[in-house]
Amino acid sequence: MSITGDQSFLKQINRMALVRVIQQAPALSRADLAKETGLTKSTVSLLVQELIDEGWFVERKAQVTGALGRRPTPLYIDSQRLALIGADLGVESISVVAVSLTGNVLDAVTEPLPSPDQAVVIHRLAKLIAACAERLKHAGRTLLGIGLGVPGPVNEQAGTLKYAPNLGWSKVQIVARLGSALKAAGVSSPRIFMQNEADVAALGEFEFGERPIPEPLVYLSLGVGVGAGIVANDRLFSGVDGSAGDFGHSILQVDGPECYCGRRGCAETFIGLRAIGTQIAAWGEKALSTAALAELAARGDARMREVLTHAGRYLGVLAHNIWTAFKPGRIVFGGPACELGPYFFDTAAACMQRYAESSGLPAPELKQAHYGSLAVAVGAAALVLHKLIRPLELKACA
Amino acid sequence: MSITGDQSFLKQINRMALVRVIQQAPALSRADLAKETGLTKSTVSLLVQELIDEGWFVERKAQVTGALGRRPTPLYIDSQRLALIGADLGVESISVVAVSLTGNVLDAVTEPLPSPDQAVVIHRLAKLIAACAERLKHAGRTLLGIGLGVPGPVNEQAGTLKYAPNLGWSKVQIVARLGSALKAAGVSSPRIFMQNEADVAALGEFEFGERPIPEPLVYLSLGVGVGAGIVANDRLFSGVDGSAGDFGHSILQVDGPECYCGRRGCAETFIGLRAIGTQIAAWGEKALSTAALAELAARGDARMREVLTHAGRYLGVLAHNIWTAFKPGRIVFGGPACELGPYFFDTAAACMQRYAESSGLPAPELKQAHYGSLAVAVGAAALVLHKLIRPLELKACA
Repeated sequence: MSITGDQSFLKQINRMALVRVIQQAPALSRADLAKETGLTKSTVSLLVQELIDEGWFVERKAQVTGALGRRPTPLYIDSQRLALIGADLGVESISVVAVSLTGNVLDAVTEPLPSPDQAVVIHRLAKLIAACAERLKHAGRTLLGIGLGVPGPVNEQAGTLKYAPNLGWSKVQIVARLGSALKAAGVSSPRIFMQNEADVAALGEFEFGERPIPEPLVYLSLGVGVGAGIVANDRLFSGVDGSAGDFGHSILQVDGPECYCGRRGCAETFIGLRAIGTQIAAWGEKALSTAALAELAARGDARMREVLTHAGRYLGVLAHNIWTAFKPGRIVFGGPACELGPYFFDTAAACMQRYAESSGLPAPELKQAHYGSLAVAVGAAALVLHKLIRPLELKACA
Repeated sequence: MSITGDQSFLKQINRMALVRVIQQAPALSRADLAKETGLTKSTVSLLVQELIDEGWFVERKAQVTGALGRRPTPLYIDSQRLALIGADLGVESISVVAVSLTGNVLDAVTEPLPSPDQAVVIHRLAKLIAACAERLKHAGRTLLGIGLGVPGPVNEQAGTLKYAPNLGWSKVQIVARLGSALKAAGVSSPRIFMQNEADVAALGEFEFGERPIPEPLVYLSLGVGVGAGIVANDRLFSGVDGSAGDFGHSILQVDGPECYCGRRGCAETFIGLRAIGTQIAAWGEKALSTAALAELAARGDARMREVLTHAGRYLGVLAHNIWTAFKPGRIVFGGPACELGPYFFDTAAACMQRYAESSGLPAPELKQAHYGSLAVAVGAAALVLHKLIRPLELKACA
């Protein structure tokens, strides 16, 4: 409903269409872009020059091919001049990263959550972001915007975190408050975008992951809780209330183990870190890190192998159910449970593979998060890029 | 990538934007439309007049309110002058319907599948469609296009049915062949659109269902097989291979009953009509219609009540899992199992409700298919409308 014939807006749509084409198919020339987009060659030349001037595109030397005539100049996304900042407001820690348009991590800082107090956390985040922005400035980079990943569903339009049970927060006007804090810290008001942690991590994989990026793409965040970010039809899939992909509470066994949510047989009761920890605690084992669990299994601890294999099998069933529901081309496993190692993941992959073979259909790619523990922070930076290069949606949301 | 500055295309986008606004909010005036779309009042007036002339819009008398000045004229989608044809190529029967832009069924014919032979079926479909088109013509209606729902995943661009196991068909160029047959039958080549049966049924609910239409919307087709059509972000959600929503083979019980697909514990082994029929056959009962099963349960047959309640409970679990995955605002139950009655459906709804209460979140609306056994045929007609009023996507697919 927002195509108004406004010329500058149409121009921005066309500019960003060019960015998206080059992002997906680097090394195309201006002539290729004209063919790809249906824009005239002169319009493409004009827009490409602007994008080069502003730091979006860079030209590289054409490869000498032996063919006659002037070689078309290949265009690439410029990784050198612009930057995006992403912040991960986690339950236990906060991270701030700067990344290039191509997903190179330029700067990263992680520290423990300073306090459960909202004001303290927002103030600290603003400080870290301001320092990061300052370093970018010294490096001669232009900041395009700031993204934030939070541990709960959000109201994107209002810039509020609806609730974050693990922080004990609800209805927090984070975007406005962070904006004020950044202004106070001397960061001239750039755009701020916010989304749920699994959603931004999914966008991180979608914008910066291994190409070609298949769709739908599901990022499954495995930790104490189990949730997912889903990208489909080029957009985040978030459901009626922003909480689609709540796979931790899909039921894998009717009348199964009791879940803290009141239901029984939820996926989290089989594969959540708390559930795994409870099993181990029942042996009288002290609390161990995920890496330590994997280490024990690797060293031959039979009980640990059994626990991780059992959990891994249910992860395979969950991944299979995600597959039947969304038919993703790729499922990415992320989150702290990624350290549980092969008894967990290889079991899941083998289970998924068996199901796929039964059905005669190719299984989706299974991958581990490209940015590891920085997945949410980098994803938050990707959110900024994702929004900027889709101006139609930006306008629709305004 | 398809916004080219082409003026006639932009005009068509704007025209169809107006149609979609009036579809969602009937009785708006030209001034309201201008406000809603950002178009100028003079552009709106021009486009509205065209849409009235062509049969999309109708003006009705403004209600006298007592306020001074000229009253703005409310606009409505015209149900009288245009028509859409939808065809359901089912495993056991074929149906052809004509519907108005507002979803009124103007004409409907259903007959048994004439043969498993492709040529025979396509020829018969063309005959039925041609006869329907002829009747529309006599009634003075203009046909906008023809939609087709088929029992298997499709390649929409190529107009092919990939495979339909229950027909024993694979890689059938249905759209091209139906187009030729229609031409031979004297139907001047209108657009033909094709999609999977559950997908078109979902679009039927999305375009013609009870307003407001929440998103995502899931149409769960319950029969021998269990599949779904999903509408999200205003589009059909179909996954990497067109077969998203294959919920019949999501696993509800690890190591559960064997499924014909080779997996175990698939949803179909609990709620598919074949699975229910097998249980009943085990009592030595002869094959009964779904309506007869419901009748027996209603008359007090304890075993039948137990069978239907057990299946209904698993339907509730499946609906819950669909809810956690997609967070739909509405789940519609359709297909022949709809005749199984309250022991099946009320149990499912109660199960779903209990889960929602446990989680503290509102459950999605549960509804039965608005068009009953014509859901797929009417949905196929809705597919035509859905495509026509989204020209951006039409062009992107061309």
